[in-house]
Amino acid sequence: MSVWQAKVATLFPEMFPGVLGQSLAGKALENGIWSLDVKDIRDHATDRHRTVDDNPFGGGAGMVMRPDIVDAALRELRGSAPQLPLIYLSPRGKVLNQKRCRELAAGPGAILLCGRYEGIDQRVLDEHEAEEISIGDYILMGGELPAMVLIESCIRLIEGTVNKTESVDEESFETGLLEYPHYTRPANWNGREVPEILLSGHHAKVQAWRHAQAEEITRARRPDLWDRYVANGNIKEG
Amino acid sequence: MSVWQAKVATLFPEMFPGVLGQSLAGKALENGIWSLDVKDIRDHATDRHRTVDDNPFGGGAGMVMRPDIVDAALRELRGSAPQLPLIYLSPRGKVLNQKRCRELAAGPGAILLCGRYEGIDQRVLDEHEAEEISIGDYILMGGELPAMVLIESCIRLIEGTVNKTESVDEESFETGLLEYPHYTRPANWNGREVPEILLSGHHAKVQAWRHAQAEEITRARRPDLWDRYVANGNIKEG
Repeated sequence: MSVWQAKVATLFPEMFPGVLGQSLAGKALENGIWSLDVKDIRDHATDRHRTVDDNPFGGGAGMVMRPDIVDAALRELRGSAPQLPLIYLSPRGKVLNQKRCRELAAGPGAILLCGRYEGIDQRVLDEHEAEEISIGDYILMGGELPAMVLIESCIRLIEGTVNKTESVDEESFETGLLEYPHYTRPANWNGREVPEILLSGHHAKVQAWRHAQAEEITRARRPDLWDRYVANGNIKEG
Repeated sequence: MSVWQAKVATLFPEMFPGVLGQSLAGKALENGIWSLDVKDIRDHATDRHRTVDDNPFGGGAGMVMRPDIVDAALRELRGSAPQLPLIYLSPRGKVLNQKRCRELAAGPGAILLCGRYEGIDQRVLDEHEAEEISIGDYILMGGELPAMVLIESCIRLIEGTVNKTESVDEESFETGLLEYPHYTRPANWNGREVPEILLSGHHAKVQAWRHAQAEEITRARRPDLWDRYVANGNIKEG
């Protein structure tokens, strides 16, 4: 199996690996399950102030990252890994979901471009035909946390990171449903009992209960997912 | 103005502040715009192995975090800040959006509970009436990155973190639209020109062009947002 490659272009290389260097993600990094190559976009600045941004044409607040500087950073990363998809983390992108994570995890890795300030000059995104991905409908201060989210969601799916295949497959979204509730010891805690069925030792009944719970929770909390689940023929209503 | 308080319960306290300790978020933390209090859930374990999890009742892969241990950690945090909302970062939660970020940013802060393994015993979530929030429809290895995403999205909105109010208000989602494209120097880069209108100096025309671009991009990329925008009476179609 080849190593899943994460290559990151950022103005804050010291933010990496951060969270990704610890726990199971960090162990998988140490074990060569995935690799991380972080480049400082500022290294491609050409003036003595190491400027990477400038005022937006047309006016307005904030600064925009220059196309020539970002282009140089991307050329360096792409030159080292021409087969990797190039992803720009941006609230204007297609919203990330588990399906896209699976596709990316099954591939060789990704080059992740992190913006700061108001954003990146549109022309360099066009030039590189960058795929824009958003992690959700909220605004952050830069693309670094979204890049980490994308990397963590992918490496989690790679064999060798999380040992139990089962615990990857039964999660939320993999079945089109949110996950059922979990219970562990003590069986009676603070006057609250574990649902009796879970103590029955009857595997089929437990599975049926969990499935019913997952359906109920999905219908109550996420009508959008529920509608898709029903539309996919998973259930006969009425 | 009072300090926005982020209080985090996690099994990996060393992951914080991480990204949030750097750049503008880190400066705002140093300047007392927000505060960060991170507690190790494991400090509440009661056996000599400092166990926090156990097997799930009903069987299945993975481990579940015990209700009694998590409860003790939450009681400690809530005791120090009873007025803060308690949020459990979970893929089963309501999906985070900019509106919820604004509401949370306008409040006193948040207590953020980060799960690991298969999740947390449902009874302790019920006991504390935890609000479950998801940052998107994908699975991560724990709640730490989602907690950072939530904190960054909130503190960015607090006065004093990002100086230019304008650059917070014109972003994606604030108007119900994705943001227009940005351009900066050089005006001609690699054979690609900046749209002429942006060089005209005609403020009203620039604003109209940007608005039309934002509408076009939203319609093309996010039919869901576009439909809501139209339904809200922002545009007359046909």
